[in-house]
Amino acid sequence: MRMLNFNGGPGALPIPVLEEAARDMLDWRGTGMSVMENSHRAKDVIAMAAEAEADLRSILGLGEEWAVIFCQGGASLQFAMVVLNFAGPGGRCDYINTGMWSTKAYKEARICGANPRLAATSESDDFNHIPEVFDFDPEAKYVHITANNTVRGTQYRRYPKTPTPLMADMSSEFLSRPVEMDRFSLVYAGAQKNVGPAGVTIVALRRELADRARLDVPSMLSYPIYIKNESMYNTPPVWSIYVAGLTFKWLKNTIGGLQAVAELNRVKAETLYQALDQSGGFYLGTARPDSRSHMNVTFHLPSQELNDRFKKEAKAAGMDGLGGHRSVGGLRASLYNAVTLDDVNKLVEFMREFQRTQG
Amino acid sequence: MRMLNFNGGPGALPIPVLEEAARDMLDWRGTGMSVMENSHRAKDVIAMAAEAEADLRSILGLGEEWAVIFCQGGASLQFAMVVLNFAGPGGRCDYINTGMWSTKAYKEARICGANPRLAATSESDDFNHIPEVFDFDPEAKYVHITANNTVRGTQYRRYPKTPTPLMADMSSEFLSRPVEMDRFSLVYAGAQKNVGPAGVTIVALRRELADRARLDVPSMLSYPIYIKNESMYNTPPVWSIYVAGLTFKWLKNTIGGLQAVAELNRVKAETLYQALDQSGGFYLGTARPDSRSHMNVTFHLPSQELNDRFKKEAKAAGMDGLGGHRSVGGLRASLYNAVTLDDVNKLVEFMREFQRTQG
Repeated sequence: MRMLNFNGGPGALPIPVLEEAARDMLDWRGTGMSVMENSHRAKDVIAMAAEAEADLRSILGLGEEWAVIFCQGGASLQFAMVVLNFAGPGGRCDYINTGMWSTKAYKEARICGANPRLAATSESDDFNHIPEVFDFDPEAKYVHITANNTVRGTQYRRYPKTPTPLMADMSSEFLSRPVEMDRFSLVYAGAQKNVGPAGVTIVALRRELADRARLDVPSMLSYPIYIKNESMYNTPPVWSIYVAGLTFKWLKNTIGGLQAVAELNRVKAETLYQALDQSGGFYLGTARPDSRSHMNVTFHLPSQELNDRFKKEAKAAGMDGLGGHRSVGGLRASLYNAVTLDDVNKLVEFMREFQRTQG
Repeated sequence: MRMLNFNGGPGALPIPVLEEAARDMLDWRGTGMSVMENSHRAKDVIAMAAEAEADLRSILGLGEEWAVIFCQGGASLQFAMVVLNFAGPGGRCDYINTGMWSTKAYKEARICGANPRLAATSESDDFNHIPEVFDFDPEAKYVHITANNTVRGTQYRRYPKTPTPLMADMSSEFLSRPVEMDRFSLVYAGAQKNVGPAGVTIVALRRELADRARLDVPSMLSYPIYIKNESMYNTPPVWSIYVAGLTFKWLKNTIGGLQAVAELNRVKAETLYQALDQSGGFYLGTARPDSRSHMNVTFHLPSQELNDRFKKEAKAAGMDGLGGHRSVGGLRASLYNAVTLDDVNKLVEFMREFQRTQG
């Protein structure tokens, strides 16, 4: 029996994607072997990766001024790659701190020998909102943001305008809404939220930026090397790219692209936030309403005991992944693209029933 | 229809492993979701990764003095991690150069700012053998070797005794034979040869070595951080670890461990080398007999035209992946653990028939 999957990531994947992956396990595209057993230099694998890239470009509307590459190591490796390629030893760089992951990105800049600085932070408010006022350094090499904060349930309504190249960790909102790519120089996303299995990180960066990357960087952390080798400097994570490619096709052809999925995601999130707001203080949202994420709805009940009972009974009712991030506790429903409105309606129904019997 | 898979990597996986992965795609271990959709912090995923590690430890006979971690980025990222963790800026380190991959490892040491040196090389003989005489630097931080050379089809019969810690890229021979782990301080292997899908790199290193690692290293390249966080500093490549774990169980329970698989691999390789040697010079092996690999049998025909025809007709006869590495051309049959003796016998039969009709 399938569970309704509200995991924060890795999270839900579309059922047709899983079905196709299972069906083709022993004989993919008539090659007589799994996609995992094909050489990454085989023409079918190269075509598959090229299709995935083309579909992604079409979904995001990326022109030739953008390079798209597939890396490994998740967002955490990108924290280092951004610094090493574009700041370098002692290089000044701006960070906006909106929670655990942007704090990690900021700290990684220091570990990698750069000179990072906070252009804004909402830490004193327990990261319950996205800052609106920024103190940018015009001499910085770049500004780094976390577009959606999985742990705290906040999200930029609009991305900031910055005097220096804007780089974004989009992991937990990637492909969930149209993006003003004009604002950005580099965006990256670990796949395991809206895209596919953990193990591949998608990076889109402007070619003119890549041309200015530092060259004193380990090969597997060098953006120009990925671009030059079309992400095949060494064996790429073929399976993860393959499943991501299936998800791109699902998003494009079944859902209808970013406008369509954004509307679905808006309705899903508003349905759930409304349930919180109309619960008379039983379900308490943790994000300030103007910063509420459409991807991760964070809330809690009046007591830890009730939080625990909620998770347990939800699981028994077929709904999993509702625990908050281990660093903050509480509850969280992640509403990634593969979570349906029907799933959310069932969750809301469960919440009403839980409140009626426990409240 | 399944093809016989002689790919150099990614390569063949055991059919029961693929079947189980397909069967559990929509509901893994009764979680009501794919293993890819489970949180990496979920108890089932943590248990799965711990089982994979335990099975690997049992297969290799690793005691508690060894740490086992799952990384990303393939052997190529290990090239940099070894240098950054254990040599550092200007640090002296020894490399034995036996082909393309060890050349890359050596060059990466320089890119990463260390001071590498060749303790031996077989480059002047076109890398057709493993050197027997070594000029080790007693002051080096370590010696690095490539245990099996996928491109050139050579393999160490015995690993060298070294005055400083020995580190080995074992990617293309990992788990194909018993290993004298006493000789090593660190071994690593990209999974996509004998273990599982590309996207996970398995590293075993001595804890006492890890305790001496440098700390001025990006977090995702720091061995101590992987060890401390049990490979879950961030989201690990769950799917690849899962399939690797299934393969470990297959190797342990169905095949019977390293002694058993080594014997199978020996017979497979000898069957094929015998076919080369008895072809009257029609099939020409490229590796010196004393250095012949049991994993990758490299050979060629008297002309490029015949090489091409061989590949084409072999494919039509249901055998794929027989092209040599793109850097050297010719032919190559990779005989990883999931390739059966029956597969090899069919290849030999095809080779005899091809020689009869084309020779």
